[in-house]
Amino acid sequence: MDQSSVLQREREDIHTISVLVSNKPGVLLRICLIFSRRAFNIESLVVSPAIDGRYSRMTITAQGSQKVLEQIVKQVDKLVDVLHASEHHSEESIEIELALIKIKANQTERTDILQIVDHFKATTVDFSDESLIIQVTGKTAKLDACLELFRKFEVLECVRTGKVAMCRGGIAT
Amino acid sequence: MDQSSVLQREREDIHTISVLVSNKPGVLLRICLIFSRRAFNIESLVVSPAIDGRYSRMTITAQGSQKVLEQIVKQVDKLVDVLHASEHHSEESIEIELALIKIKANQTERTDILQIVDHFKATTVDFSDESLIIQVTGKTAKLDACLELFRKFEVLECVRTGKVAMCRGGIAT
Repeated sequence: MDQSSVLQREREDIHTISVLVSNKPGVLLRICLIFSRRAFNIESLVVSPAIDGRYSRMTITAQGSQKVLEQIVKQVDKLVDVLHASEHHSEESIEIELALIKIKANQTERTDILQIVDHFKATTVDFSDESLIIQVTGKTAKLDACLELFRKFEVLECVRTGKVAMCRGGIAT
Repeated sequence: MDQSSVLQREREDIHTISVLVSNKPGVLLRICLIFSRRAFNIESLVVSPAIDGRYSRMTITAQGSQKVLEQIVKQVDKLVDVLHASEHHSEESIEIELALIKIKANQTERTDILQIVDHFKATTVDFSDESLIIQVTGKTAKLDACLELFRKFEVLECVRTGKVAMCRGGIAT
């Protein structure tokens, strides 16, 4: 396999799982345990209140085999306080994340950086004499590409939200 | 206290904590345990890989007393595999989150919805005959206000990333 198909392969093994849980203490712990028992590496995790305050929504990005993942999803789905767990497939879902990137920038570097910002439809959320904070949203691959371009400058800090996913169209969630 | 100062009070009790950890299994579990032992409710949690792949960044939003929180931060900071834990204060930080909101919309409702989208500088990321998916980014209060306006339509689903935070300006993180 050449380099690009290896990358392609790795990308395929990254799964996005969406879980709706009751907003009770301990639920997160029990879900994490199921993943760690099967040595499945959680790459990113997003937990936030659902529109109905009694529930929380989790979006988990994890890397590993499809077969093991299916077992994990089944186990999570069976947990008390879990209302629903399922895997998202990128062709039928919107998958978006947000990143804040702080870059060291003097006056000359700033022009080059702002051209990249412009291209990626990103925005500058903080501007000082020695640094810029850039906010960029989009698919994981877009954020990776953007960050790669910024690497020729000095990236001081980067925070990403991890992926959130939602099924396209229709009334079913 | 009138309604608005009660709200103000509640807002003040919401804290944002930023933690840099080694990308090892079990770290998340141990951090969650510290919070749950002190009955501190985690409202949102964001974990994603740091720019150096060996580390992960966590941003935790939690509600409770300042005093207990300080103890929690100290305890988290002492954990093995935790490199750094600190509280963010909104006046010196950029705090942003992202939301995807799916709204049931026929042709007449769509016009009203798109006016709100326009006002909040949000974007439509999916468009079908019966629904729209809106992407909106900003501070928690902005997202709350936007969601409140959408409530007069039928909100089918909402996923929020939870807050990520970054100190303004300077070279220090």
